[in-house]
Amino acid sequence: MAELTQLIDSEVFLAYATYTTIVLLKMMLMSIITAFFRMTRKAFSNPEDTATFGKGENAKKFLRSDPEVERVRRGHLNDLENIVPFIGIGLLYALSGPALSTALLHFRIFVGARIFHTIAYLTPLPQPSRGLAWLAGYAVTISMAYRLLTTGLYL
Amino acid sequence: MAELTQLIDSEVFLAYATYTTIVLLKMMLMSIITAFFRMTRKAFSNPEDTATFGKGENAKKFLRSDPEVERVRRGHLNDLENIVPFIGIGLLYALSGPALSTALLHFRIFVGARIFHTIAYLTPLPQPSRGLAWLAGYAVTISMAYRLLTTGLYL
Amino acid sequence: MAELTQLIDSEVFLAYATYTTIVLLKMMLMSIITAFFRMTRKAFSNPEDTATFGKGENAKKFLRSDPEVERVRRGHLNDLENIVPFIGIGLLYALSGPALSTALLHFRIFVGARIFHTIAYLTPLPQPSRGLAWLAGYAVTISMAYRLLTTGLYL
Repeated sequence: MAELTQLIDSEVFLAYATYTTIVLLKMMLMSIITAFFRMTRKAFSNPEDTATFGKGENAKKFLRSDPEVERVRRGHLNDLENIVPFIGIGLLYALSGPALSTALLHFRIFVGARIFHTIAYLTPLPQPSRGLAWLAGYAVTISMAYRLLTTGLYL
Repeated sequence: MAELTQLIDSEVFLAYATYTTIVLLKMMLMSIITAFFRMTRKAFSNPEDTATFGKGENAKKFLRSDPEVERVRRGHLNDLENIVPFIGIGLLYALSGPALSTALLHFRIFVGARIFHTIAYLTPLPQPSRGLAWLAGYAVTISMAYRLLTTGLYL
Repeated sequence: MAELTQLIDSEVFLAYATYTTIVLLKMMLMSIITAFFRMTRKAFSNPEDTATFGKGENAKKFLRSDPEVERVRRGHLNDLENIVPFIGIGLLYALSGPALSTALLHFRIFVGARIFHTIAYLTPLPQPSRGLAWLAGYAVTISMAYRLLTTGLYL
């Protein structure tokens, strides 16, 4: 990591910025999908959210959990659990001066894997589709962390 | 994004640092509020947490979910889902050389929206208060992502 | 924060990168532990995940929540809630030019506290072990945020 200011390689950092933005927008889409299913399936968590659909006892029946809503929410949480490490480790990796082609390979596999993970989760596709998509993203993050800890470790 | 080292504009980055710190401290406050409601309402998730309140069967009755605790936890998770994209996209946005006034407008609306979101969630205020607060923060993040992807895209 | 490019002190930033990577890898380990407990205890959330264990009604009995799985998941979510603020505030803190020894003290306590938090949660150790581990990590993050907001505040 020698001289950090020199290592902020424009192209690698630009690639990191692009793929991070894409994968975060994908994660944000989960909020919209959750809201869509909550509306269409009339399944809410908060009493104040059901006020449009009726009053008193009539509104209470919409305070329920729906399998489709819960599925989207699990996908969303899985995104958080996997995209947060990617952003953190990926930023440091992008600043550690990797070859552009290697960095692009990491970023592309990760973002592709997470998009496929969402498709596999929401369809749902039979396993091990979702499992493999998760594994691919996980392996990419481990690979970046490995490079980070072997090139510059400061304990 | 041309020369990244030149683009780390002190004032924009300083503003990003300030607002990010404030919104993360607000998110951390949710942990305290959750702990407060767990204590006062005696509603815990782990058997070892109830040991202070009694033993055996007597402690088991505190292993329950409480509507107020669950409400705070939903607010906390919603923070995570929305603040993580803001931090990631906002960092890259701050490094992409926006005008200071535009950047400040984005950061201020986001932080204000998330603080109001928490107030609307915990009071609770009637809808669409919470919905609009969420939407404002969401729109700010999309706006920053749009600028990022249009000024410098590297796929 | 004066001249940011000068303030990216190699050693402090390298230390931040190292400890962030370690604590994110620890968080990623929670996914593996969750998967392990789901497999050994045969407790799944998605119908497609149970297909290996049987068909129809036989598979349905594996769609259940298990106390051990839920415990790991709570630990994972607590990691997210606490490590996200550390990464965000820690990055800005590392760029604000702290003394290397002070920065190392912050990073080491945080990472040690989070590792101990996981051990205390999964064993489980009697309280207040987990509570104190959580508090130590929380206090470190507040301390870094305090420095950030007192040295360079831009509202």
